[in-house]
Amino acid sequence: MSSRMGKNITVSIFGGSHTEAIGMTLDGVPAGFKIDFDKLSAFMERRAPGRDAAATSRREPDAPKFLCGVLDGVTTGAPITAVIENTNVRSGDYGNLRELPRPSHADYTAFVKYGGHNDIRGGGHFSGRLTAPLCIAGGIALQLLEARGITVGAHLFRVAGIPDTPYDMAALTADTLCAAKDKPFPVLSDEAGEQMHDAILAAKADCDSVGGIVECGATGLPTGLGNPMFDGMENRLAAALFGIPAVKGVEFGSGFGAAELRGSTHNDPFYMDGTVVRTRTNNSGGIQGGITNGMPLVLRVAFKPTPSIAKEQDTVSLVKGENAKLVITGRHDPCVVVRAVPVVEAVTALCLLDAMKEDNKI
Amino acid sequence: MSSRMGKNITVSIFGGSHTEAIGMTLDGVPAGFKIDFDKLSAFMERRAPGRDAAATSRREPDAPKFLCGVLDGVTTGAPITAVIENTNVRSGDYGNLRELPRPSHADYTAFVKYGGHNDIRGGGHFSGRLTAPLCIAGGIALQLLEARGITVGAHLFRVAGIPDTPYDMAALTADTLCAAKDKPFPVLSDEAGEQMHDAILAAKADCDSVGGIVECGATGLPTGLGNPMFDGMENRLAAALFGIPAVKGVEFGSGFGAAELRGSTHNDPFYMDGTVVRTRTNNSGGIQGGITNGMPLVLRVAFKPTPSIAKEQDTVSLVKGENAKLVITGRHDPCVVVRAVPVVEAVTALCLLDAMKEDNKI
Amino acid sequence: MSSRMGKNITVSIFGGSHTEAIGMTLDGVPAGFKIDFDKLSAFMERRAPGRDAAATSRREPDAPKFLCGVLDGVTTGAPITAVIENTNVRSGDYGNLRELPRPSHADYTAFVKYGGHNDIRGGGHFSGRLTAPLCIAGGIALQLLEARGITVGAHLFRVAGIPDTPYDMAALTADTLCAAKDKPFPVLSDEAGEQMHDAILAAKADCDSVGGIVECGATGLPTGLGNPMFDGMENRLAAALFGIPAVKGVEFGSGFGAAELRGSTHNDPFYMDGTVVRTRTNNSGGIQGGITNGMPLVLRVAFKPTPSIAKEQDTVSLVKGENAKLVITGRHDPCVVVRAVPVVEAVTALCLLDAMKEDNKI
Amino acid sequence: MSSRMGKNITVSIFGGSHTEAIGMTLDGVPAGFKIDFDKLSAFMERRAPGRDAAATSRREPDAPKFLCGVLDGVTTGAPITAVIENTNVRSGDYGNLRELPRPSHADYTAFVKYGGHNDIRGGGHFSGRLTAPLCIAGGIALQLLEARGITVGAHLFRVAGIPDTPYDMAALTADTLCAAKDKPFPVLSDEAGEQMHDAILAAKADCDSVGGIVECGATGLPTGLGNPMFDGMENRLAAALFGIPAVKGVEFGSGFGAAELRGSTHNDPFYMDGTVVRTRTNNSGGIQGGITNGMPLVLRVAFKPTPSIAKEQDTVSLVKGENAKLVITGRHDPCVVVRAVPVVEAVTALCLLDAMKEDNKI
Repeated sequence: MSSRMGKNITVSIFGGSHTEAIGMTLDGVPAGFKIDFDKLSAFMERRAPGRDAAATSRREPDAPKFLCGVLDGVTTGAPITAVIENTNVRSGDYGNLRELPRPSHADYTAFVKYGGHNDIRGGGHFSGRLTAPLCIAGGIALQLLEARGITVGAHLFRVAGIPDTPYDMAALTADTLCAAKDKPFPVLSDEAGEQMHDAILAAKADCDSVGGIVECGATGLPTGLGNPMFDGMENRLAAALFGIPAVKGVEFGSGFGAAELRGSTHNDPFYMDGTVVRTRTNNSGGIQGGITNGMPLVLRVAFKPTPSIAKEQDTVSLVKGENAKLVITGRHDPCVVVRAVPVVEAVTALCLLDAMKEDNKI
Repeated sequence: MSSRMGKNITVSIFGGSHTEAIGMTLDGVPAGFKIDFDKLSAFMERRAPGRDAAATSRREPDAPKFLCGVLDGVTTGAPITAVIENTNVRSGDYGNLRELPRPSHADYTAFVKYGGHNDIRGGGHFSGRLTAPLCIAGGIALQLLEARGITVGAHLFRVAGIPDTPYDMAALTADTLCAAKDKPFPVLSDEAGEQMHDAILAAKADCDSVGGIVECGATGLPTGLGNPMFDGMENRLAAALFGIPAVKGVEFGSGFGAAELRGSTHNDPFYMDGTVVRTRTNNSGGIQGGITNGMPLVLRVAFKPTPSIAKEQDTVSLVKGENAKLVITGRHDPCVVVRAVPVVEAVTALCLLDAMKEDNKI
Repeated sequence: MSSRMGKNITVSIFGGSHTEAIGMTLDGVPAGFKIDFDKLSAFMERRAPGRDAAATSRREPDAPKFLCGVLDGVTTGAPITAVIENTNVRSGDYGNLRELPRPSHADYTAFVKYGGHNDIRGGGHFSGRLTAPLCIAGGIALQLLEARGITVGAHLFRVAGIPDTPYDMAALTADTLCAAKDKPFPVLSDEAGEQMHDAILAAKADCDSVGGIVECGATGLPTGLGNPMFDGMENRLAAALFGIPAVKGVEFGSGFGAAELRGSTHNDPFYMDGTVVRTRTNNSGGIQGGITNGMPLVLRVAFKPTPSIAKEQDTVSLVKGENAKLVITGRHDPCVVVRAVPVVEAVTALCLLDAMKEDNKI
Repeated sequence: MSSRMGKNITVSIFGGSHTEAIGMTLDGVPAGFKIDFDKLSAFMERRAPGRDAAATSRREPDAPKFLCGVLDGVTTGAPITAVIENTNVRSGDYGNLRELPRPSHADYTAFVKYGGHNDIRGGGHFSGRLTAPLCIAGGIALQLLEARGITVGAHLFRVAGIPDTPYDMAALTADTLCAAKDKPFPVLSDEAGEQMHDAILAAKADCDSVGGIVECGATGLPTGLGNPMFDGMENRLAAALFGIPAVKGVEFGSGFGAAELRGSTHNDPFYMDGTVVRTRTNNSGGIQGGITNGMPLVLRVAFKPTPSIAKEQDTVSLVKGENAKLVITGRHDPCVVVRAVPVVEAVTALCLLDAMKEDNKI
């Protein structure tokens, strides 16, 4: 239950970093949709590790194998299950983690929750590797949305204190949303990207890591998606986005910056754009009262720095009940935020698709 | 469905700003718990409007009437329903809002969603007034948690750019959590509170409003609450907290600030405190991998400035399909954040209680 | 959570037999629907007690008071809450039931579940009286379905071993479904009804009670409602129908009789009726693989005899832990099945409406 | 969503009769449980096809391959996914079913629901073959229950009009529940079993099929499982049991027979059995008010005769829109009820385990 998101279109994630396979079941997508598997591979490639020196050296093809739900490339209406085999695992790297929990990882809480029976190898079910099957589902969702004129995109809003050009929230276009997708470093400003890249490599050289913020948007959304109170688009998006490992905060539109403003500045005045109601600013981020208003959706997701760092750290021995030192080996990203960009797109797309289905817009 | 939160202990909210009554059904709380109704009234009083010049002048007793689920002051195990009659309504104040949607309110999206049949009076089901029944449920949850040694508290972290003393996340105590509860202005630093108060009155004098941030914490939590991926404590808390009107962002522990840090600074080193595993810092905010780790829970919720301001604003006529001007009359808070402090406590307490029940800790 | 049904359109029931009020919250019905309150009253009157000598002498108006969700008689899209005050209660009648649980009632299991804190008066939340608010919701659902050409009706299929004329499943019409609705005794064959009535009075004279079976049908349903496996129409209807007190069995179409037949007799052959696909027989009861096939829906619900009988019965003292005798006083129906007919209609209508919404048919 | 059951312990089923694999994800089982894989295989073998002449000749090993959630044979607390590869498929057998829907199958409703994109091969996701992964989950549930002293068993209550010895509901023992488990024909009375077997072969010889009823019971259950109204044990069990293909009815305890009885006969009198409260009869089937009362659970499930028969049948051409004849080839059970016995056990065990978890009894 815990590893499932969605109401009408659900995604269930299974597997662990070093289990035989990881995978997902996507239920509720319309029958008769032809999946573009090349496009899906290209999307998943954006999340895949090992693309450049700024990422983990673990290199896997991450090619999903579809077990059911798709016939001749077309969805049948039945649940779609796809798996990725875990071929390139070095379980030996994680030998001492059962005793010595990694700071700011789930090793300790999983130990408590599961009475020490949790699969510690690579973080088990808590591993960032689980975002791979999430991207299978999200990649399909992106295609379904695109077929209805909806574009979802994201970029590195900020890494290691270095800002990218932010989205112009009221004037966001599909072109801007796609601008970063083909770049190895998903930014709008290549200059900012270079600085971020340097900062990541500098942290790596220091056996350290950096955090960052992903900004995500969507255009072409119908008005009226979402519901009041606890079932609004923010509620649903936030609940899903916090499912991505390392996320510490989620905000919409003006977000935390709203706290600094006065109502007269923050309010989004309505105007008629021909026969369409629009707002001049978009501090609402496209959502009012939990319901989409037809303006671009804009949200931001804060990621902490990768907790797996090569520096020696203080921890405790769960066996001896005493303080201990830990040196983490294995391969780790000095900045997960880069690879998290398509994951944020995936989760956002899945939430939007789910809300679309509820209102029979797909 | 949209107006319900919780998995094992659910709260369902009903009513609108000007309907005959508003209320809530709370289902799943243990049988045999004696509710302290005086304490509940005192808690609800903290949210009630009309306490000082910095809030709306609408003044209502907001006394809940319990219809069922409680016998001789003790919970029976059956669903608890309580209602608050809406006695002090001036529906005439809202006459023109069906035509002229208020900027950054849900008037327009509700119009679209419900085909113009939505109850526009006072914002209907989207009104902040719905936080009153939420506080009935939350007030009971707070008492249930307190009986198990868990304290939930909150304060005004920041209003109109003015910061209060932040929580010391690693050393947060129940005393600190309760420090702001009896104050008309819920802050740790009274000096900061005075400045905030002045800023709110200044905005009011300008026919304007201000936003702010509420910081909320909990101590005494058991380890092991919550689940991986999409059912972690952050997911559940965020999903619920975005149900409070005007919320634009939610963060845990280091939150958005995490994006600026390196892993070596951000990671929370473990140490043994006697036989208890603790962390020296608490950037995790008490949650790792979605699961509580025994450290204090800390979260922050950003509120936008009240959208209902007395200044003339640009809007559109939904009848004529043309640009229009709007002057909002009626009684409105220049800063909803002050009264939102107990609401954040209420929602947090309900989420924690729900997770406690799941693990049979209540 | 336990007292709620539905996925997209949900009904939440609250209250107990002798609490201040009972009620329901209905969420998810379309905005803009004008409720016919006279028709709703007439529907609720069919369930109301005290109509003739064959029912309980407790007589209440059961007039629902709508608190919210309806404005000028029209649904607003927000949750609809209505309550019925419990005015005619004689709590003294139930004085000894806390010690002496009534056989085949929930007194004992509620005692265990809620540690003795359950509201024993009139059975508390387990009372058949809770079907009154269920009929408020169901009565609205029936009107919504009727507006889309769907008729739901039911009759006493069998009482005390006496059969009514069964529905002709393949040829069921809206007229037949409505034929029993205006009768004080809801049967197709008035002769059978008289015999049932006599049997009920005979049982009453013996301080005893009788059981029976309700048959319910629906015409005008679109094809395609429901889903495979655990979310089919049978699953959803059965889950809801077992929520009516005293139900012991639910079957669809041929039901338990299917076990006696061979496939060649049981299978429903398809044929073209003009351009419409129909089946010559309807042993499927209008559902195949969990999904409606356009034929009339037919189901049957078995009710046990009222457990509250005036005869002395064996029970135990929960206080003394020894065998005891019980004589139940108070007012009780010798046959709840008669009044259960509209309740079965209500629950069926709510399930159908819920499935309609899922497929955007309302 | 449609192919998932359970609240706290969920089972999600995926795959189709002829897809690459079928499988299940089981989430929520306790960590640290050692699965007995031999026992699991033996359980699944009871459901497996091809055991004797009275069943389909399709013969598959049905050996589940565990992808995750189990480490060294012990559950880790993470979701457990297992798959069964579909190796022995003859898809050509189903060539004409897209045009000619089989009577009393889901071919037609799936065609409507999924716009003709459904996987028709072997019934796709509607195939009885999906009960194989259900038995993986159920087999694990049975082991978990057994470790807590709870036994679940079932037998052929009635096949082709031939009755087996019924359970003595008030005196049901674990031994009786297990008595039929090792028999190729799961009955209590071997004489009845032989007659059933002959009747099945006779139907097969006539190119026909027969239906039947499975009776299932459980002993050792704690009191207090389940909840009032819509979340009682009957609601949950019925909702799940109707997920087994070909089920037409579900009843508990006295079931439909209750309709024939008077209250004085039907009521289950309480008595003290030492310090334990028990009932002398068990028409309640172990459940009162939705909540277990400590007596044996007893339920019955009616199955229709296998709709796939070799006799020529009337159908329609969905391509030509005209009446047509159909001769079904392929391998089909003349009586699915025999193999359904362990499936009913599996589903019942999963529901009980789910309710146990809710009350922290596992």
